[in-house]
Formats: sequence, structure tokens, C-alpha cells
Amino acid sequence: MVTFHDIIAARPHVYRYLRPTPLTFYPTLSDLLGAEVYIKHENHQPVGAFKVRGGLNLAAHLTENERAAGLATASTGNHGQSIAFAGKVTSTRVVIAMPENANPGKVAAIRALGAEVAFHGADFDTARLWMQERAEKEGMRWVNVTDEHLIAGVGTYALEIVEELPDVDVILVPVGGGSGACGCSLVANAVNPAIQVIGCQAAAAPAQYLAWRGKNAEDAPMSTFAEGVATRVPFPDTQVILRRYLSDFLLVEDDDIYRAIVMLLEHTHNLAEGAGAIPLAAASQIKERIAGKKVVLVMSGGNLSLERLRAALATA
Amino acid sequence: MVTFHDIIAARPHVYRYLRPTPLTFYPTLSDLLGAEVYIKHENHQPVGAFKVRGGLNLAAHLTENERAAGLATASTGNHGQSIAFAGKVTSTRVVIAMPENANPGKVAAIRALGAEVAFHGADFDTARLWMQERAEKEGMRWVNVTDEHLIAGVGTYALEIVEELPDVDVILVPVGGGSGACGCSLVANAVNPAIQVIGCQAAAAPAQYLAWRGKNAEDAPMSTFAEGVATRVPFPDTQVILRRYLSDFLLVEDDDIYRAIVMLLEHTHNLAEGAGAIPLAAASQIKERIAGKKVVLVMSGGNLSLERLRAALATA
Repeated sequence: MVTFHDIIAARPHVYRYLRPTPLTFYPTLSDLLGAEVYIKHENHQPVGAFKVRGGLNLAAHLTENERAAGLATASTGNHGQSIAFAGKVTSTRVVIAMPENANPGKVAAIRALGAEVAFHGADFDTARLWMQERAEKEGMRWVNVTDEHLIAGVGTYALEIVEELPDVDVILVPVGGGSGACGCSLVANAVNPAIQVIGCQAAAAPAQYLAWRGKNAEDAPMSTFAEGVATRVPFPDTQVILRRYLSDFLLVEDDDIYRAIVMLLEHTHNLAEGAGAIPLAAASQIKERIAGKKVVLVMSGGNLSLERLRAALATA
Repeated sequence: MVTFHDIIAARPHVYRYLRPTPLTFYPTLSDLLGAEVYIKHENHQPVGAFKVRGGLNLAAHLTENERAAGLATASTGNHGQSIAFAGKVTSTRVVIAMPENANPGKVAAIRALGAEVAFHGADFDTARLWMQERAEKEGMRWVNVTDEHLIAGVGTYALEIVEELPDVDVILVPVGGGSGACGCSLVANAVNPAIQVIGCQAAAAPAQYLAWRGKNAEDAPMSTFAEGVATRVPFPDTQVILRRYLSDFLLVEDDDIYRAIVMLLEHTHNLAEGAGAIPLAAASQIKERIAGKKVVLVMSGGNLSLERLRAALATA
């Protein structure tokens, strides 16, 4: 299992290419929520999402053979951009399987980073199973979305949060594969177990939520527009950590995610993708619980398509 | 006149509260423009615009008497947020005159920073003349939008550009009062005079452009939606610097600014306000001239209202 020490050790690999992202206080959002609201701007990363930290840590741990064989993975977009970015800076071949209906902006960004894209199936999990088999046949290094090096790498943003705001009370973090939530949970537990880390997911794709609550997640629906959290099955590697350290887990309806995107545009002037807006939607559900507290919302990514932006503005 | 040394000297005051902003390479935007396109993300500043750098440098140079008397200025928004931010961190009273139709998000942000807002008149210049008189009567320190400490402070972002991309060929920068363009011009001239700094303004508010071209700017129209560059008269203090060092000056129609806002949302997932999108619109006009070159677009701010965002999406 990934440890706090792994996250500390990931920092030099991450900061070789990236700078810490801003943790910004928003007065008008604070008034609305009745809490002291900060946003961790992982949408300011060069590929627009937190995952790039994990890719850089993974790349630093590849053997020469693995680098020569190339990396294979599957993604709805941000994980793929992260591995493509890592492949680019380390001159490693990268092949990414994506669902056929993938966000076109994310596809273009992955290709622009020099990675190959292979479309397969209607969702992430179908693309993933197909690519994993192909990687095995072709001898490529398969990169699981919950690879330990990825979890440790993305955890570095949680370190930045507790360093800049040591007396944070609550961190709300979106859960897709769960790597971001694992990083936050591990760091909070090591630094100050009183910090509440609350995971949040789309009600229209609740597999991880159901598994965390100990319920059957086998036939969980998966219809959210927010591709960053559109997982159909639970991930055992991250569930182990989340069950141990996560304080709570909330679900958010897609329409509330749309409304949160518009609130974030209005009050922070930042474009959040669906996953990146879920923490605000979840915080709005628990206003009494967070009243007067120091609350960090993790804006995990900003890669929203124009089509989705128009849909959000039409909903709000 | 402000010098390169003043900008260097401003850095410690600016970095006491702020970190350098990202200079990000955008592959798909580069393909579209046929150049190597980078964006300087001043929209990532805590108040959403570059001006905050200037306010911090000004605050560091106030005498005890000035601090006790308080600061008075006029603004369409971002300059006001900058002075309000500086007032907050130095516990100085700040009064900001704004035009009656000011961007409500910018008004709320200024108030949330603890500054007083006084509405007057239909545009920036009317509010400015009224407030300047009031400041004199009440013995407050009047802060001109082109105060030398402000120009030196904002110039620090230009230093970050040339340090991170020493072989930059062209910098496109929006011109309102002209402080940002002055900073870029002064830095480029000191570091490498071969760097072309190109100012750009809304065709619907061309006073600074006309003055720079040696034409009569007295009755220049002022009808642009982009309040960050909505100046009705030229500013002598910045004209002196711009005439000496600026390579060129371009005008952009409001509809093209709207289209650039949408292009930036699509390709960079950043929300730019009108002024912050002008450099992309201007770059699109001079594709042959910048072909294959390293081009930096200064995204000066991101404080676009929802109403304007809807207008932009309806135009594009």
C-alpha cells in the first residue's frame, strides 16, 4: 500500500517539471457557503488536471526495459494526458486506449503530447480491458490507473494544501479511480488525523461509493456526463486506502454538477470540468456541517468541452 | 520614467505575497496559429488579473502618513482589486470609484477585500475625475492608474516571461491604461531589444492607439464591452514609454474578442475576460508575421461576467 513516505519521496520527481498550484481563498464563495472556502487549483496544471503529477512520478521509476517497451494505458482523458506528458518528457512511447465517445479536446491534447490514441468501446472500463490484453501481447508496460507511483505522485498536491493551510478542517475531493482521494487521505492522516477528507462522486456513476459503503457495486449505473469520475467498477487498490482513511463519501446529481460549474465560473472565473466541480456541489449539501470551518475544494481539472459548458449554462 | 531597475526592485515586494504565474505552451493553439504559442497566465493571480502585482509594489512604498490617510482610486475593476488587495495586506483604508455599470463580480470582489466602493458616472474616466477631486478634499493618497510603482510592479510578469522563455520572439499584450505593455516593453528592451512587444486594444476604444500613432484621440469612441481596456483618453505617462519601446500597436473588433474568448475556453480551458483575449485575436490578424515564431499571449485577466460569457458563446 502507498505510504505517506512515498508521497514525500515523489516530490522531487514532480517538482522537476511542475510548480505548486495556487490554493486561493474566495470571499464571495465563502459568503455563500458560510465557511472559509479555498480552492486548490489543479486545473492550473499544464495539462489542466492533477493527474500529471502521478505520471511524472511513475516515469521516474521506470526501468530501462520498461522505457524501451513503451507504456500502455486506458483513459477518459486526464490520466491519458498525464501519461502522455510523462512519455514526452522522458522520450517514452505511449499508447492510450480511449472510449469511442471521448472528450475531443482531451483526445487532441493527448495526441499533441505525442502519444498514440486507440479508440475502443463505449466506456472507460471496456477500453481498459481491451488495452490491457493488447499491452500484454505486445510486451508494453501496462499502467493501471491506480498504480502506486501514480497515487504517490498525485498525493503531492495534498502536501501543498496542508503546508499552505495547516489548520484546514475539511477537504472535499472528487473520486474517479480514487488516486486523488487516496493522496488527500494519506496526507491528512499522517499530518493531522482531525482533518476530514470527504470523497464525492456523481450519483450517476456510484460504483466506488457503493463499494466504500459496503454495498454491491456490480451493476452500478454509469451515465454521468463528468468523464473524470465515470467509473463503472470499484478499484480494489484505492478502496483499501479509502476505507481506512476517508471520513465520508457523498453523491452529487449531474444537474447539481452543472450548477456548480456555473457557480465556479461566476465566483472564481475558473472553468472546472465535471469532476472538478463536484466538491462545490457536495459542499452545498453539507452547509451545516462545514459552517465556519476552513474548507478546501479540490478543483481536480478544468478540461470541460464547449458542448458541456453550453449544457451547464443552459441548466443553471 | 520607470526603469528596468525599478522592475527588478519591485520583485521582493511582489513575491512577498505572490508566486510566479505559469507560462504554458498550448499545442492545439500553436497548430491553429502556425506558431509556437505560449500563454502567460496572469488570470491565475488571486484576484484574477496581473494588476495585483502593481498594488503590492505601491503598498511597499507608502509613507506612514499616506497609509494613515488611506488610498483613493478609480477603476473598472482589476486595478481596484489590486489596490484593495494591497490595502488588505497592509491594513490600509481604500476607497474605489467605479462607473455605475461596473462588472458586478468585480464590485463584489473589491468589497470582499474590505475596500469601499463609490459609484459615479457612466465610464472610468468620469469616475476617475470625480474621485480625484474627492481624494484631494479628503486628504487621501490618490493612486493614478499609471503610478510609477504600479508600472514597475506589473512589469515583474514580463521578467518571468523572459526568464522562462529567453528566446521569445513576440509578446502580444493588451493596452488599457498601458501599465502592462510598459512593463513588457521596458523588460524586452533591457533584456533583448529584438523581442517584439505588440500592444493591442479594442477598436471600439482606440484612444491609446490613436495617440501612439500620433493621431487626435480627443473624441475617440469608447463602446467596447471589454472594460479592462475601456479607456476614453490616452495616458501621457505610459505613452512616453510605449512610443519609445513598443514595436507595434493593433486594434481588434469586439466580435473578434468574443470569438477569442471562446477559442481560449476550447483550447486552454481558461476563462479570459475581454482584455485577456485580445492578444489571441490580434495574433490571428498577423499569422504571416508570427509564422514559426515563439509567441507569448498575455492573458492579463480572467474576470469575465456570466452575462459576457453567454454573449461570447452566442457570437462564436
